[in-house]
Amino acid sequence: MSTRLHNRRRQIEDAASALFSGRGYAATSMRDIAGALDLQGGSLYAHVASKEALLWSIVDDAAARFHAAVGPLADGTGGAAERLRAMVAAHVGVLADGLERASVYLYEWTFLGPERRELIARSRDTYQAMFERVIAKGQAAGELDQAPDPKLAATFVLSAVNALPRWFRGDGPLSLDEVAEQYADLFLRGLAPPAPPPSHRRTS
Amino acid sequence: MSTRLHNRRRQIEDAASALFSGRGYAATSMRDIAGALDLQGGSLYAHVASKEALLWSIVDDAAARFHAAVGPLADGTGGAAERLRAMVAAHVGVLADGLERASVYLYEWTFLGPERRELIARSRDTYQAMFERVIAKGQAAGELDQAPDPKLAATFVLSAVNALPRWFRGDGPLSLDEVAEQYADLFLRGLAPPAPPPSHRRTS
Repeated sequence: MSTRLHNRRRQIEDAASALFSGRGYAATSMRDIAGALDLQGGSLYAHVASKEALLWSIVDDAAARFHAAVGPLADGTGGAAERLRAMVAAHVGVLADGLERASVYLYEWTFLGPERRELIARSRDTYQAMFERVIAKGQAAGELDQAPDPKLAATFVLSAVNALPRWFRGDGPLSLDEVAEQYADLFLRGLAPPAPPPSHRRTS
Repeated sequence: MSTRLHNRRRQIEDAASALFSGRGYAATSMRDIAGALDLQGGSLYAHVASKEALLWSIVDDAAARFHAAVGPLADGTGGAAERLRAMVAAHVGVLADGLERASVYLYEWTFLGPERRELIARSRDTYQAMFERVIAKGQAAGELDQAPDPKLAATFVLSAVNALPRWFRGDGPLSLDEVAEQYADLFLRGLAPPAPPPSHRRTS
């Protein structure tokens, strides 16, 4: 694909991401997308086969970016807490790269056709499982509290960070990175092993 | 309003909640709602003035139920941690009463017209401020860690619980109440005051 066509494609995906994340995929027509780009509806079809193909392209690209950013950290060495902190930061970094595209990935993927929806459902499960695995390993090593269910703990923190595209505005007192850091603090303190009860402490 | 009319109105709101939460408000027509109820499109207008009036009715009712359930707990006496735990449980209790209606309240309210949207935006701020206030009081009393920003901590836990309508299915291993309890555990442990450093411990 030539650079010029590539740029055009990118503009189309950006315009579609703004509309899909704002009013929703189902309420957005190809005509709306063409209108946002000052294109005739017909000429949009020279670039994309269908609205669902456009959704797929945005969602599949975002999924790949989340996996690429977080995967190496999940498989890395080092303590579970520090790895989880880095994974949360990397996840939020991908959000920060494009909140509207991330929002489409997070909240509009269910409008994909059955086969592609199934692929993304599996990809999302695999992604979350990376967080679950690091939590479980940290528990097994005694580094994290045994009590929380790893699946529920991963859902908890991913739910919190994935709400960021819904409320975060760049004009607030904190940057997205700073929010991510405070979220990771809250989460990791929630997973820290309990302090030994006082009667078990060495007192002499 | 007679009981029969009241029931009809309730059925209409339930059908609308299912459609608004599933495919989105903007992608749902009055004709879709009528179809789900086996009504003629026209006869729906005997019960509701417009699609936006229906959205308002669902959202305003849900907002009132969240405030009614959580407000008295926020103003109650007792420790901050136990109050927050009760508030999270009560919040999830309202979700559990109707996941689809709650989902419309949480995720479709932005489609209200400007005046009603402004009312709900303020109501949501007031609601979240109850959590922030209890956190801040707990920090001031030394019961909770000073470090987390109360606003961010409240956003963190509400984001996590408000994602429940998106993924929770009743056929899983945990009930909604059990999830709420584990979430509250993770959250409150994240807010617990740090253990004193070892050098400050009495050692004799």
